[in-house]
Amino acid sequence: MIDLHLIGIGTGNPEHLTAQAVAAMNSADLILLPRKGHAKSDLIDLRRDICAAVLTGATRVVEFDLPVRDGAAAYLDAVDDWHAAIAQVWTTQIAAHLPGGGRLALLVWGDPSLYDSSLRIAERLKGGGMDVLVTVVPGITSIQALTAAQAIPLNPLAGALTITTGRLLREHGWPEGADTVVVMLDAGRAFEVLEPRGITIWWGAYLGMAQEALEQGPLVDVGPRIAARRAELRARHGWIMDVYLMRREWTNGA
Amino acid sequence: MIDLHLIGIGTGNPEHLTAQAVAAMNSADLILLPRKGHAKSDLIDLRRDICAAVLTGATRVVEFDLPVRDGAAAYLDAVDDWHAAIAQVWTTQIAAHLPGGGRLALLVWGDPSLYDSSLRIAERLKGGGMDVLVTVVPGITSIQALTAAQAIPLNPLAGALTITTGRLLREHGWPEGADTVVVMLDAGRAFEVLEPRGITIWWGAYLGMAQEALEQGPLVDVGPRIAARRAELRARHGWIMDVYLMRREWTNGA
Repeated sequence: MIDLHLIGIGTGNPEHLTAQAVAAMNSADLILLPRKGHAKSDLIDLRRDICAAVLTGATRVVEFDLPVRDGAAAYLDAVDDWHAAIAQVWTTQIAAHLPGGGRLALLVWGDPSLYDSSLRIAERLKGGGMDVLVTVVPGITSIQALTAAQAIPLNPLAGALTITTGRLLREHGWPEGADTVVVMLDAGRAFEVLEPRGITIWWGAYLGMAQEALEQGPLVDVGPRIAARRAELRARHGWIMDVYLMRREWTNGA
Repeated sequence: MIDLHLIGIGTGNPEHLTAQAVAAMNSADLILLPRKGHAKSDLIDLRRDICAAVLTGATRVVEFDLPVRDGAAAYLDAVDDWHAAIAQVWTTQIAAHLPGGGRLALLVWGDPSLYDSSLRIAERLKGGGMDVLVTVVPGITSIQALTAAQAIPLNPLAGALTITTGRLLREHGWPEGADTVVVMLDAGRAFEVLEPRGITIWWGAYLGMAQEALEQGPLVDVGPRIAARRAELRARHGWIMDVYLMRREWTNGA
């Protein structure tokens, strides 16, 4: 039996780790660390550093190469193929390193519940007949790292909010009925599809990390600044992860 | 100058504390702990236990009585008065215990950005002329504790989600365009306003605590069970905090 722990590690700041995450890492027989290619080598370095700082016992740490998503295929088809390929790689790693079963941990950026595929890939292992028990350890998400860095509430007072993706914002525009919108997984500048008047944006990249970058203000002024800064940072670091929150003032009649 | 740290402590499980939260608590001159009346004495006990477990230095811990919100007044008026009353109490405590300024910490249930009033009350102190610098330390929210306990994703694959309150759900029904909805601050059974067919619910109360209770399944079956169990638990413990996630299957034509 595979006792699989999906452990949220926060957004790269080792100080985001909870006591529960540290305990779960140390109780694992094996931690698998995915390598995501040269451009994102900072991300595996951070996971290596976290393991080195936190592990005190006999936990083995094994690195493996994560398959790459097909950028040319239709999005949902590509995601489906990609999840299948990752499930295959996990299966191979488990057969090689935990042939008799045991406790396996994966370190998940942010929180395993939010825009992460590990839970869905674990379901595929079960569907493929593997005996897997899944335990989730929550972690600080980039949304919380953003609102903390900007010292702002996430929800409007007594109000609701919508969390969406760059792809959906680009396809459908501002979500109906929402006055606060958080955008994740934006490959770049999806906010440009919006009429910017009346919208305020709070943006953050590399949240919690040494490279952390923040912007905030009216979208009409700050949008172009974010676009330029994002391109510059991405070129400098070879990768970028960012998130933003927008509020719309309905009273302005935008 | 008041160097105010709003520290997310998670949902009552001391293991939810991040390394950053522990460091921020220990670097504070003063931690103010709110007492919320006899019925919620578990909540101050948990904060006392966390302080006892975590503090290693000279940080002083002072308890104070939190004003009670007027349940009879109109909701937003009552919240406004309540925030004003809390700002007054904070001001009094600061004058008594940090007359020359210093580092003040408040331990916030969940995360300071999500349905918590501390950031808004800190703004009132600034508005009243106090020199306050606000730093936020993110914490695990009850939403993450719920999805972890249920081992489910928060967002649908490549999809969006809405976070709302029991009050808004009761007033406006299912949020337009949403297929995943998280409901917080429900004083009880707001989901009963919905046509339950096609909706699945995942519910949790006292998440991360010894009293943790979970339910999940089709709303049509599980809704009545949650209503009964919630009433029973509330009577037994004197208080309840719960949160739930619902998904609607549009393909069922509900």
